[in-house]
Amino acid sequence: MKHPGLWKMLMVAMCVALAGCLQAQELHGHVSIVLLGATGDLAKKYLWQGLFQLYLDEEGKGHTFSFHGAALTAPRQGQELMAKALESLSCPEDTAPSHCAALKDQFLRLSQYRQLKTAEDYQTLSKDIEAQVAREGLREAGRIFYFSVPPFAYADIARNINASCRPGPGAWLRVVLEKPFGHDHLSAQQLATELGSFFQEEEMYRVDHYLGKQAVAQILPFRDQNRKALDGLWNRHHVERVEIIMKETVDAEGRTSFYEEYGVIRDILQNHLTEILTLVAMELPHNVSSSAAVLQHKLQAFRALRGLHKGSAVVGQYQAYSAQVRGELQKPESFHSLTPTFAGVLVHVDNLRWEGVPFLLMSGKALDERVGYVRVLFKNKAFCVHREGHWAPEQSQCLPRQIIFHIGHGELGHPAILVSRNLFRPTLPAQGWTEVQERPGLRVFGRPLSDFYAYSPVREREAYSILLSHIFHCRKESFITTENLLASWVFWTPLLDSLAHEAPRLYPGGAETGHLLDLEFNGGHLSFSQQQPEQLVPGPGLTMKPSDFQVLGTRYRESPLISAWPEELISKLASDIEATAVQAVRRFGKFHLALSGGSSPIALFQQLATGHYGFPWAHTHLWLVDERCVPLSDPDSNFQGLQAHLLQHIRVPYYNIHPMPVHLRQRLCAEEDQGAQTYAGEIMALVANSSFDLVLLGMGTDGHTASLFPQSPTGLDGEQLVVLTQSPLRPYQRMSLSLPLINRAKKVAVLVMGRTKREITMLVSRVGHEPKKWPISGVLPSSGQLVWYMDYEAFLG
Amino acid sequence: MKHPGLWKMLMVAMCVALAGCLQAQELHGHVSIVLLGATGDLAKKYLWQGLFQLYLDEEGKGHTFSFHGAALTAPRQGQELMAKALESLSCPEDTAPSHCAALKDQFLRLSQYRQLKTAEDYQTLSKDIEAQVAREGLREAGRIFYFSVPPFAYADIARNINASCRPGPGAWLRVVLEKPFGHDHLSAQQLATELGSFFQEEEMYRVDHYLGKQAVAQILPFRDQNRKALDGLWNRHHVERVEIIMKETVDAEGRTSFYEEYGVIRDILQNHLTEILTLVAMELPHNVSSSAAVLQHKLQAFRALRGLHKGSAVVGQYQAYSAQVRGELQKPESFHSLTPTFAGVLVHVDNLRWEGVPFLLMSGKALDERVGYVRVLFKNKAFCVHREGHWAPEQSQCLPRQIIFHIGHGELGHPAILVSRNLFRPTLPAQGWTEVQERPGLRVFGRPLSDFYAYSPVREREAYSILLSHIFHCRKESFITTENLLASWVFWTPLLDSLAHEAPRLYPGGAETGHLLDLEFNGGHLSFSQQQPEQLVPGPGLTMKPSDFQVLGTRYRESPLISAWPEELISKLASDIEATAVQAVRRFGKFHLALSGGSSPIALFQQLATGHYGFPWAHTHLWLVDERCVPLSDPDSNFQGLQAHLLQHIRVPYYNIHPMPVHLRQRLCAEEDQGAQTYAGEIMALVANSSFDLVLLGMGTDGHTASLFPQSPTGLDGEQLVVLTQSPLRPYQRMSLSLPLINRAKKVAVLVMGRTKREITMLVSRVGHEPKKWPISGVLPSSGQLVWYMDYEAFLG
Repeated sequence: MKHPGLWKMLMVAMCVALAGCLQAQELHGHVSIVLLGATGDLAKKYLWQGLFQLYLDEEGKGHTFSFHGAALTAPRQGQELMAKALESLSCPEDTAPSHCAALKDQFLRLSQYRQLKTAEDYQTLSKDIEAQVAREGLREAGRIFYFSVPPFAYADIARNINASCRPGPGAWLRVVLEKPFGHDHLSAQQLATELGSFFQEEEMYRVDHYLGKQAVAQILPFRDQNRKALDGLWNRHHVERVEIIMKETVDAEGRTSFYEEYGVIRDILQNHLTEILTLVAMELPHNVSSSAAVLQHKLQAFRALRGLHKGSAVVGQYQAYSAQVRGELQKPESFHSLTPTFAGVLVHVDNLRWEGVPFLLMSGKALDERVGYVRVLFKNKAFCVHREGHWAPEQSQCLPRQIIFHIGHGELGHPAILVSRNLFRPTLPAQGWTEVQERPGLRVFGRPLSDFYAYSPVREREAYSILLSHIFHCRKESFITTENLLASWVFWTPLLDSLAHEAPRLYPGGAETGHLLDLEFNGGHLSFSQQQPEQLVPGPGLTMKPSDFQVLGTRYRESPLISAWPEELISKLASDIEATAVQAVRRFGKFHLALSGGSSPIALFQQLATGHYGFPWAHTHLWLVDERCVPLSDPDSNFQGLQAHLLQHIRVPYYNIHPMPVHLRQRLCAEEDQGAQTYAGEIMALVANSSFDLVLLGMGTDGHTASLFPQSPTGLDGEQLVVLTQSPLRPYQRMSLSLPLINRAKKVAVLVMGRTKREITMLVSRVGHEPKKWPISGVLPSSGQLVWYMDYEAFLG
Repeated sequence: MKHPGLWKMLMVAMCVALAGCLQAQELHGHVSIVLLGATGDLAKKYLWQGLFQLYLDEEGKGHTFSFHGAALTAPRQGQELMAKALESLSCPEDTAPSHCAALKDQFLRLSQYRQLKTAEDYQTLSKDIEAQVAREGLREAGRIFYFSVPPFAYADIARNINASCRPGPGAWLRVVLEKPFGHDHLSAQQLATELGSFFQEEEMYRVDHYLGKQAVAQILPFRDQNRKALDGLWNRHHVERVEIIMKETVDAEGRTSFYEEYGVIRDILQNHLTEILTLVAMELPHNVSSSAAVLQHKLQAFRALRGLHKGSAVVGQYQAYSAQVRGELQKPESFHSLTPTFAGVLVHVDNLRWEGVPFLLMSGKALDERVGYVRVLFKNKAFCVHREGHWAPEQSQCLPRQIIFHIGHGELGHPAILVSRNLFRPTLPAQGWTEVQERPGLRVFGRPLSDFYAYSPVREREAYSILLSHIFHCRKESFITTENLLASWVFWTPLLDSLAHEAPRLYPGGAETGHLLDLEFNGGHLSFSQQQPEQLVPGPGLTMKPSDFQVLGTRYRESPLISAWPEELISKLASDIEATAVQAVRRFGKFHLALSGGSSPIALFQQLATGHYGFPWAHTHLWLVDERCVPLSDPDSNFQGLQAHLLQHIRVPYYNIHPMPVHLRQRLCAEEDQGAQTYAGEIMALVANSSFDLVLLGMGTDGHTASLFPQSPTGLDGEQLVVLTQSPLRPYQRMSLSLPLINRAKKVAVLVMGRTKREITMLVSRVGHEPKKWPISGVLPSSGQLVWYMDYEAFLG
């Protein structure tokens, strides 16, 4: 735990929340529910019905209720609109019509419209509630404010509620918030801070209505009830992949003003699919109904997610979208939107349980079917001697083995949990779920329904009615806490930024889309299976893509220069290193590689770690070119970068790893500890002729390389192989390979990336051999080869 | 190339062979073909027909022929038998009946029976051939001797041929040998040496008739013609698995005298399936029709095969087999054969191309269908957005992607090459192969035939007729050279030895076998998917299974004792360590664990590596209890076991790993290098109070623990934390934690496993505190806890 203080705060917060909950359950009284945005779409479609259901469930159990529909509309008109919305309320299926009418009538009598616009309106509301409670001789239990309003209105409403609508002591306040919760990490944080200035964390219920969907809500209970069977299966050794999918047939027509600003990743992936991802991937808490434990495990799962990069995702846009935007938002004919209406994202969870297992998140509009599901596909490690026609679903390990949480729609048509019969017979809650009847001809993921143990809810319930009940009962595990929300934005924001100017692939929509959006993953990369067909509309801001260029080869300082866009450059360098390694191992049995620290090599490390399965790591020795005089475990240590981005992902034998001994006898780079001499001795003992097979260098904006700095006397010549040096920047003390040692290498690669290097690149191209002024100019292998790797920004500016 | 001498020899041999071949093709003359075993089954079924075909193909192209059927049978009776065998010769389909009769008549006139029994018989044969050649005024081109006889007869026949039947100078000799070529590596080598004393390597043609099967013979040409498409696919990144399968419906009835001695592995896997394996796995030679290049690449493939162990294979036996053996070989009622009639073997090719790809070889008798094939299944890395019903075979990457060399039979019914349409459109030889017509309803590996580009030979040809033609034309690439043969036996013999006393799983045979023989692979292990049902015949060596028992708890030397079967014990210990680790990290932020070397901890390491996802490795420090004074990379090093079985699989930060410094300044455990003091210093610096959270110890049969040995003065008391000691066994020098340091630990676990520990376990249970005699008796943590973990064999004997 890095922040014990935070932990304490959380515990306190939880206790407060728990106290509020106990009160709610034990102390009966009057509950006022204020629905802000009472005449809006969401309210009409789900929320009023959910409130009615809540009333039916809770009425007569000790609490009394009043329901306040609120909006900006003037009273009379608002009253009419609300009345219309309430007309379509329906009772549970088994209610007699006459009884239903009576129930609705009761509910309507408890409900009233009110305009909430000014601060005074809020004060009046609060006074009215107090008056009503007093009039009827009741005790006030609490107030729920449901924000079914656009996010720009949040702050104002929150301020008013906090200022005027808090109930008296002993009664609770709960505010319910609907997405979007920000647009990226920064805006989400601002919004959270703002709301946090008005409400306690435990007072806020951020709704992700997917968490109220019955199949989603069962993920954790299912994992809990089937712990024994899943214990050995729910990990990278057995899971082939996880698919978290939400396909829609509708498009964004009529909603483009919202959609154009958000797009599918913010609308669906960042929230719904990510929440599902954490439910699947998290370590299972001992007690799955403890919301604190669930939250902690969710946050842990977020921390294990591998960062996304541009190559992790593909985006698409249905062809009619831009025209719809132009029409609805009065854009000129020349306008083409870059907002994705389709996205596939490949997520990796970098922990021992999930390392290497692809989690595919996908959602899109205007697709060929409407369906939502989570599918955990298990590896097929079986060979069935018996001919396929005779495979028995319970027995054959060759039939697909999968667990599906079917959220809804699709050919199945309802929520369900499906477990392949050759896996295990699942345990489900004693109540509420029942076996699905066989439906001949129905195929689910290519298999007949009879291949599965299949369960569905006895009664389908709307997500909102479940969530309203949870809010009422103070069950926070189905809601998004601030920490959870921000963790999700931390994860998604870099990808959103990197995609901001990408042109999505256009697709016709519906069945015509065919295989155009099919995806393929390879290592950490996701791509469309099919080559891009002719671009139908040229996207704006489309500059040349890296792939439009070949890697350029020319010369720099009389040595070969390889220049390309960053991704290509790193990829080329990684391939070159691998080729050198393979050749060295073939000839000498081992490969001695000396690596620099810094940020550019990190991209290289990641590339080597994820893409180069053929790299002869078992025969590779890794050396450091230079090191900062800090403990190896210090985040500033070059070794730390090497470990986090490369060593953790590959298998180099422990004794082939040679960190610089900067930390001896509990002190850093003390001359008398002879660390430099020790490292030199190690090199002489292991590296033939002290000639590394490959040394990877960088170049600083001041012309330094390794930790050899301009105007510093050490390491530029002489006999010493390893030296202690002084950097102009913190941490000042460094250890470095010397120039003479570097120049003994068989191959030296200098990697230079980024616009900041532009000037020094130009300068160094012109200077001669002046290592005292520009140490980099002293790099000239005596019999080895020097190659420069520069990205276009460093080389062309 | 490790043996340049060998290479040279080979080149010479090839040139000689080549010369022989050139002569054969250029210089026409008379060819005598002697079929030994002319009245046997193989001759009747295939060889005479093959010879007839050869005659039809070659007659009139310059050579003249005579065919000598030979056997031990007396002339008249033999003549009759041979005549019967020749009656059923058939002409190619398009031959008119009258013309066919004429052709057969010609062939019969050139064929004669002769008894070959004594040395004189062979001399006579040779003289007769010479006389015939002289009489007809011909030049002798060469002689082919086809050994269709049991292997015990080989030596005698070979001696006679070499002594009396070699043709004169300028004419060639070719001998054709049929399997079995030995029973294991030793007998194969003896047979090869014996044959080598009579024939040159280039004179011998060892037949593996599978190499004459059309689909098998196409493997290399197919790979060659489709180099471009396969280049990126034919490797571990894309291949999921390779299946090489030969299923038979017939059983061994009537052939048990042969079968009982060989079994399915020697009969099918060691030769046919292994040859196919090398054709699939080998690096593709530049010139696939160079038999020398093919041989070299085959041998290279053999060298890359990972050694087989008992866990690589499963064996079965159809239920009626033992009774058939008893009947045919007059065995008593009590006799039960251990000969497998079914085997599945998991092979791994440990090179960069194939590492990690399972190659499954399987064959069996009395199965549910007759079929032979090689199936290369590619990885599915695709996700198809479009609904499954609409997948187009050419476009959908989600449909299975596979290449099948269909050897014959099965539902397809003929040889074929099938390539999934979503892979690529293959190139096939311009002649001889044609597209297979669609057959509605036919499914191949679960897919309709229309999913594939499917090709089959225009004309189905018997393997033997192809091979005879190759022998005649001196094409050696379809035959097994001595080197190839011995390489295969080197590979198979250890497995055969280790299975020699294994009871095969009994199966009913035919369709009734159901899923009983289905296989599952996991890492390097192959097993039956289903638990062994009731053993029909008790196999030898079957004792109680671990799961029959619970873990027992009681006390030993006044400390808690946990006793169980090995698997349970290791699993309990691993869980206990994890619980201790979690608790320590929760309380102190880190966990200091000191581990012993040896074989028992390895099982523990494996358990921790594969099963414990929640272990807080990132906060765990790993120390060594003791170390042998060898380099860390030495296989004897305790660290090496820790690295291979634990470190490679988990993520402990580099600087949390603390190997003992036994190897400093290029020397081992020199007092003056102060390694022990350095380690003690490291412990004092990092471990609070030098009190490890957990120390794992073992106990030697002499009562030693850590590397503290009886009657050794060091480390049992005093101030030193780490000491150098002497072991009675090699390597003598050791480094060890001292007893006082061990006793400062918060928890000490002693793991004792195996029958060999029984005596010391009993002894130590009775002795008091006598560390000089029994160092283990000195283990008594001053304020920590001691727990004994013993398996039943160590504890109960």
